Amino acid sequence: MAALSMEQLVAFAKRRGFIFPGSEIYGGLANSWDYGPLGTELRRAIKDAWWKRFVQGRGDMVGVETALLMNPKVWEASGHLATFNDPLVECAKCKERFRADHVEGTVCPNCAGKLSEARQFNLMMKTFLGPVEDAANAVYFRPETAQGMFVNFKNVQTSSRRRLPFGMAQVGKAFRNEITPGNFIFRTREFEQMEIEYFIAPPKSDKDWQKVFEHWLADMHAWCVEVGIDAKRVHELEVPKDELAHYSKRTVDLEFDYPFGRKELYGIAYRTDFDLKNHMEKSGEDLRYLDPETNEKVLPHVIEPTFGVDRTVLAVLASCYDEDKAPTAEEGESEARVVLRLPKKIAPVQIAVLPLSKKIELSGPCQELAQSLRGQYRVEYDETQSIGKRYRRQDEIGTPYCVTMDFDSLEDKKVTVRDRDTMSQERVAIADLSAYLTERFA
Amino acid sequence: MAALSMEQLVAFAKRRGFIFPGSEIYGGLANSWDYGPLGTELRRAIKDAWWKRFVQGRGDMVGVETALLMNPKVWEASGHLATFNDPLVECAKCKERFRADHVEGTVCPNCAGKLSEARQFNLMMKTFLGPVEDAANAVYFRPETAQGMFVNFKNVQTSSRRRLPFGMAQVGKAFRNEITPGNFIFRTREFEQMEIEYFIAPPKSDKDWQKVFEHWLADMHAWCVEVGIDAKRVHELEVPKDELAHYSKRTVDLEFDYPFGRKELYGIAYRTDFDLKNHMEKSGEDLRYLDPETNEKVLPHVIEPTFGVDRTVLAVLASCYDEDKAPTAEEGESEARVVLRLPKKIAPVQIAVLPLSKKIELSGPCQELAQSLRGQYRVEYDETQSIGKRYRRQDEIGTPYCVTMDFDSLEDKKVTVRDRDTMSQERVAIADLSAYLTERFA
Repeated sequence: MAALSMEQLVAFAKRRGFIFPGSEIYGGLANSWDYGPLGTELRRAIKDAWWKRFVQGRGDMVGVETALLMNPKVWEASGHLATFNDPLVECAKCKERFRADHVEGTVCPNCAGKLSEARQFNLMMKTFLGPVEDAANAVYFRPETAQGMFVNFKNVQTSSRRRLPFGMAQVGKAFRNEITPGNFIFRTREFEQMEIEYFIAPPKSDKDWQKVFEHWLADMHAWCVEVGIDAKRVHELEVPKDELAHYSKRTVDLEFDYPFGRKELYGIAYRTDFDLKNHMEKSGEDLRYLDPETNEKVLPHVIEPTFGVDRTVLAVLASCYDEDKAPTAEEGESEARVVLRLPKKIAPVQIAVLPLSKKIELSGPCQELAQSLRGQYRVEYDETQSIGKRYRRQDEIGTPYCVTMDFDSLEDKKVTVRDRDTMSQERVAIADLSAYLTERFA
Repeated sequence: MAALSMEQLVAFAKRRGFIFPGSEIYGGLANSWDYGPLGTELRRAIKDAWWKRFVQGRGDMVGVETALLMNPKVWEASGHLATFNDPLVECAKCKERFRADHVEGTVCPNCAGKLSEARQFNLMMKTFLGPVEDAANAVYFRPETAQGMFVNFKNVQTSSRRRLPFGMAQVGKAFRNEITPGNFIFRTREFEQMEIEYFIAPPKSDKDWQKVFEHWLADMHAWCVEVGIDAKRVHELEVPKDELAHYSKRTVDLEFDYPFGRKELYGIAYRTDFDLKNHMEKSGEDLRYLDPETNEKVLPHVIEPTFGVDRTVLAVLASCYDEDKAPTAEEGESEARVVLRLPKKIAPVQIAVLPLSKKIELSGPCQELAQSLRGQYRVEYDETQSIGKRYRRQDEIGTPYCVTMDFDSLEDKKVTVRDRDTMSQERVAIADLSAYLTERFA
């Protein structure tokens, strides 16, 4: 595995169209990023695989998509309005603000002015609904997708007639006005989450919730493997009891060895019945679940596995980026190549269709072949530059298979299929190509 | 086709878990809505079908996912900061504000106070990045996804090495601080768009762009059919020359006959080179395209087809909702049934697997069968209530096929497959079920 610096990764992601700096032609915007053509397909494929694994692939999960803007009472009840803060200090001279835990003393790092006492700064992004910008119309963009699931618990449970245990899942954007975003797409003010709230009957003993917790934790590791995150770089961090959030009885962070160091990737928490109880009290709505066997009303407890979409993209790119040697056109010679060893399922381009020549006799049928594969795969047709250069480019963006058509193809009705990882080439009858690929993408 | 009122549609959508009022347990929030389990799957399937048709299914399209928060200079350049306004009047007495075109005179409809002159109110949602809430830190949530594509034109074209004509597509949220949102999910302050910017060489004559415009317009109609929107309820509205937006040389709205009347569904506009020219001037970056044949730098022109996700959901539900008669358990008797005639591809549940009895001999193998189908389809397993009630429920949520297992199934290894639309039932060997379904979902 090649050691990759963040600078290399950022440059690579931009050059190949995975990720661009946000608003770049206007000098950017804080630490914001836009996903280009390849990044968008990779991101979509990751989210889709997640949904297939954790929602559609299971009998005990349902999905929701809740609004980014919710009634502020939600954030009052969840505690976000009161406690979702960073302590900030302000310079009396230049008015700049800093995170209190990021400055060493009482002196401004900018202008040596005097810093104020720390003041709480709420991390939610505020806006106003309707024409009047006053407190009565203030609303907040959600800092997490979780609360959208809790406040819908009753509607979802009733309409889907689910019995415990069952879970809700949501994929969507969230916003945090971080004072110090950074490290590429690792910490941004706008980000996307994939979250699960798995509801269980009130546990009679610790074993009841621990069993579920362990199941999900194991499945989070399995998910890492599924999308190509290097298991050797994933580490469990058991959050110590005295550092647990007030709602959590147990939290495990999955950390990843990013190029800039070991930091959080995912997390899983046992939130007890904290959220439903809170929303029940504050809203006055009965959120209890009627157990059809005991005929008792109970408040479900919750296990919450959380995944960041953007961090997944980062961990996948960092894990799959590799360098090795490839043979050149010269007999016995080889050259360095970059190869992105993405799982076939999430590769942004799954099949590249390449005519050996731009001549219409070849490019015509080759484009037809590409089009015939587009219903089932993400396909790129490319006729520019030498075949060697095109192979290098496809290796670099992680395309599992290149299908090349040459002049012999017109006679023998066969194409050459090249494997990204082994670089071996196989001659396959066009009539058999569909079955050949189906088998390899299964 | 049953005539469906909005009240019925809203109640149906809530009862079955398609769409719930947003933040309902806290009394809601303006006109916001949350998608429940079925609505979420329907919405996902619609977005997925759109992406497959317009991006992955074509050789001339690429996707992007750009940030919701962009540098404010983008909105300065696009004209949104100066002109994306509604004129409002304010009551001198009660301070309420109204859209100037919604009040009839100079007197407040609330308290009969005196109304002010109309004042421009910007529809973009403002927030602040960083700890200081002042003008220098003000940013706006995007009111459309389009500008995210224009400002990335150069990065996308260069990294993907696309030649004209080619298009960019984006699916994502946008926000407009509408004074009068309403009509269920028709007009909300938070909504999702599916937009295409299709770039063409500067046209030498009107025919050049008209041809492309007509192609996309035809494809928009074909898309409506693909997702089950009733073609008879879709109408083209040619926007008159004197009402065109300043950037548009031609705009056609596709209107739909909603239960509340004929209103906009989609739109297509020929935006000329307005956007790229603007961003090139304001940013100082050269956004021209180097034509590899003439070796000249040119500014591409743009055809823009725009689709609303939420309006698509609304039009699909309104089109597919139907009522007819179904036979009952009593010989020769029938009862009214609601049936949602969704295209198989977008039905939130594609196959319902139903054991005739809850007994473990049946429910065990039936759950196994359901699980074996989950890799490929959206599957629901349901063992509660009578089989007749379960059929009614699946009809109502649009499930194309019910697969029922009875005690004979344990002997003859066959299941009953019931078709939603014809209500015909067929006995199919379990061993053949996969092929049977593949054929019907193709």
